[in-house]
Amino acid sequence: MFKKILIVGCGLIGSSILRAAIKKKISKKIFIIEKSKKHINQIKKLRLNCEVLKDPKQQIPTMDMIIICTHLGEYLKIFNKIEKYINKNTIVTDVGSAKEKIFRQIKNKIKKNISWISSHPIAGSEVSGPKFGNEKLFLGKWCVLIKDKHTNRKHMKILSRFWNKIGSKIVHMNLKEHDHIFSITSHIPHLVAYNMVKTAINFEKKKKTNIVKFSAGGLRDFTRTAASNEIMWKDIFLNNHKNITKGIDLFINNMRQIKKLINTKNEKQLIKIMQESKIIRKKIISSKQDVNLPDFGRR
Amino acid sequence: MFKKILIVGCGLIGSSILRAAIKKKISKKIFIIEKSKKHINQIKKLRLNCEVLKDPKQQIPTMDMIIICTHLGEYLKIFNKIEKYINKNTIVTDVGSAKEKIFRQIKNKIKKNISWISSHPIAGSEVSGPKFGNEKLFLGKWCVLIKDKHTNRKHMKILSRFWNKIGSKIVHMNLKEHDHIFSITSHIPHLVAYNMVKTAINFEKKKKTNIVKFSAGGLRDFTRTAASNEIMWKDIFLNNHKNITKGIDLFINNMRQIKKLINTKNEKQLIKIMQESKIIRKKIISSKQDVNLPDFGRR
Repeated sequence: MFKKILIVGCGLIGSSILRAAIKKKISKKIFIIEKSKKHINQIKKLRLNCEVLKDPKQQIPTMDMIIICTHLGEYLKIFNKIEKYINKNTIVTDVGSAKEKIFRQIKNKIKKNISWISSHPIAGSEVSGPKFGNEKLFLGKWCVLIKDKHTNRKHMKILSRFWNKIGSKIVHMNLKEHDHIFSITSHIPHLVAYNMVKTAINFEKKKKTNIVKFSAGGLRDFTRTAASNEIMWKDIFLNNHKNITKGIDLFINNMRQIKKLINTKNEKQLIKIMQESKIIRKKIISSKQDVNLPDFGRR
Repeated sequence: MFKKILIVGCGLIGSSILRAAIKKKISKKIFIIEKSKKHINQIKKLRLNCEVLKDPKQQIPTMDMIIICTHLGEYLKIFNKIEKYINKNTIVTDVGSAKEKIFRQIKNKIKKNISWISSHPIAGSEVSGPKFGNEKLFLGKWCVLIKDKHTNRKHMKILSRFWNKIGSKIVHMNLKEHDHIFSITSHIPHLVAYNMVKTAINFEKKKKTNIVKFSAGGLRDFTRTAASNEIMWKDIFLNNHKNITKGIDLFINNMRQIKKLINTKNEKQLIKIMQESKIIRKKIISSKQDVNLPDFGRR
């Protein structure tokens, strides 16, 4: 499909793309840029067939595609380093979870003819680093591709084919839509999970009790989400702060309402709220967005 | 171990106790009381070796142990029906998730010589009904036994042996301690999950977007918890409302603080909060309170 591609940042997502691209023979050669020596050593140990990019000036102009898989906070640094070598025929993409702010910010600063089409594969996990990478990570998962009036249509086709080949289903959104939707389906849930664990830690310190020992009652699920990479999530929260702020306000208002229902013993309304959330679970199962097993099939 | 035991309410927990008790040969005969015809049919289909209690007046005085496994909201009705037949040598227990309010309320109304020692096995799932019952549900899980100065020590020993036999590890608490700890490790997490899904539903209606399709970004985990039995959880919320109210206030205060950190771009503090929650996850894994697999080992 390609002669040469470059993956910038080889953590969980970058190394999963690397593995999937090797498996599906996406490119004759795959180059990587990775600043962590620990990650480089892990990749060497795993014998993943790729080459560390040595000479940006010579090599970057020859790439068919560049995929940025670092934290959002690294983007500007990366573009500053490589943008001058990027060819207008090279497809540039990234896999970031927040789009509008950073895309507009960088677009304003780089050469106009760089063909950057932003991607967001809805896949991941609470673990980090190439050793957890998985060639099947994208299988059957949605991948959002950002489309606007400037998008190079030929490149969009090629990029879509790439994601399809490694298993993803494509959906198009604009920057605003993306950040709106994922504020509620991803960013607020993560923030709420972090906040739940923080609240439990506060409680533990105050009451000198053991929250870990009795976490199986519900808390433990929150700790999985709240074990996600803190640099990645700090960047997402800051890059989608407007939508997230609105989401927090909505969440707090709803929580106050539930508190009132409990304290006024409004059984009927409480039951209604809980019945409605059960319907969402059923829809998630029937649209295959989660495993159809009690307790995630966990033992 | 016993000649006759009675399980009142044969849903997920009751039928799991039934299965485990059969497997471990806990009792020569096991009786059940179950008001749902659907559940009775499921139990018959599963050919679980038990007998529906027909004659409370004759049969209840002969029981070695009675285990109440209904929703908390049913307790008063059940005690009103059976308390006059309960023998002082019979161990009475229940498996409710909230303790103090209901225990005191009922204790005041029933015969003084009834030996009721409350249990809370920290096990369960988002699914309901006997068809989801599992003889291994309690294996390696904590079971809280409520102890006070009035507790019959001989009965406590027998009850502990019972839970041990079906796989649980015992921990003792008083009523207050129990409701305190589980407000934060179980009740607030469930309430937060319900509130997260409610907030997502509000968002979906307002923005006319599809939250289910993109739930894999984090929301879907909340929908599992928020698919738990609504009658059970309504009862728990109402029966532990004081601790839950305090927990909600603490949660909201923390959420406001995180919102402020995001809007003032306080990266350092945000990272610190997230790093601390990662430590809790590590403790949960190392103390075997959850599976040591990314994404709960889900595929």
